[in-house]
Amino acid sequence: MKKIPLITLERYPDYCNYLLTLGEECERISSGAIAKALGLGEVLVRKDLAYTDCVGKPRLGYNRVELIGALRSVLKCDVHKNAAVIGVGKIGHALLSYERFEKYGITLVCGLDENPDVLDENAAKPIYDAKKLNDVVKKYDIELAVICVPDFCAQTVCDEIVASGVKRILTFAPTNLKVPDGVIVRYMDLAANLAVLASC
Amino acid sequence: MKKIPLITLERYPDYCNYLLTLGEECERISSGAIAKALGLGEVLVRKDLAYTDCVGKPRLGYNRVELIGALRSVLKCDVHKNAAVIGVGKIGHALLSYERFEKYGITLVCGLDENPDVLDENAAKPIYDAKKLNDVVKKYDIELAVICVPDFCAQTVCDEIVASGVKRILTFAPTNLKVPDGVIVRYMDLAANLAVLASC
Repeated sequence: MKKIPLITLERYPDYCNYLLTLGEECERISSGAIAKALGLGEVLVRKDLAYTDCVGKPRLGYNRVELIGALRSVLKCDVHKNAAVIGVGKIGHALLSYERFEKYGITLVCGLDENPDVLDENAAKPIYDAKKLNDVVKKYDIELAVICVPDFCAQTVCDEIVASGVKRILTFAPTNLKVPDGVIVRYMDLAANLAVLASC
Repeated sequence: MKKIPLITLERYPDYCNYLLTLGEECERISSGAIAKALGLGEVLVRKDLAYTDCVGKPRLGYNRVELIGALRSVLKCDVHKNAAVIGVGKIGHALLSYERFEKYGITLVCGLDENPDVLDENAAKPIYDAKKLNDVVKKYDIELAVICVPDFCAQTVCDEIVASGVKRILTFAPTNLKVPDGVIVRYMDLAANLAVLASC
């Protein structure tokens, strides 16, 4: 499969969500209709979808169910992956009970923190001592880490995650993280997003 | 001022954050150094920064403090804005005590919910009955709304927000929202972000 540009990949959940809202009464859909609904250009939509296995037919468009399947396949929704949250403050805690990860095949299995007051190894979503990171990564086969710690310790926590073997990191701390080749960091800066919105 | 492309605006908080980490010992910085630190192309950085009032000097680069000021000016950090969260579940609750909005001049002043059990008009960050949306928007001069309600009612809540006069909406519900011209919606799909990371 061709390497899909990140910017394209980022639109795949939107396509999926939209196609799912259409329901079974919609059997086929054109790139033009998708483009209009999502406020995108039709050429862009056609290019984006050309990276999937689903081929649209002239004048008939894409089979909706096939297209959803193709998008979900690229997003690896049917491959189960475990994730852990490092830093169980309010945001970390909210994420642990956030149910929307499951539709992408991702389970946030546990949290880790260095504050003894929040640890609870017997909870439905256990919270372990941050010192046990290596053991937790092995035990649950953690592939994704979510950093929810304060900025000042984000790089240290990131280094520990990388050392534990996890190669995909989502961080809520707005600190530019240094990682070795092969490790990918994605930034989720809530405040910056609101600021950008306010400046539009 | 020229209209700044959204994709450029989205990088401004990253530039700001990076420049702030450098501290006072760094008086001037080149576009090349910024590009290298953030893993971006130098031409891109130079184009991005050309939208600000700060002019870099050949071989000397940008004055760091001036550049931070120019970026913050575009992001309107020094213009105070009030925001409200609609839907005070776990994510909404976490946002209400999230302190990082302040550095962009944004205060999340209150929440609104339709569940009587979570209402508390006397809290430091009061939580009002969702029926009072219009009054709350007037009382606090709310310019930004953050939607944290379940998907199925996101459009209804969005319509009410638009009717109340708010024109900038950040939504955590992964539902494609229809809004009239002049209203801007920004999507914050936490699960999709983790899924995209897992597919990279």
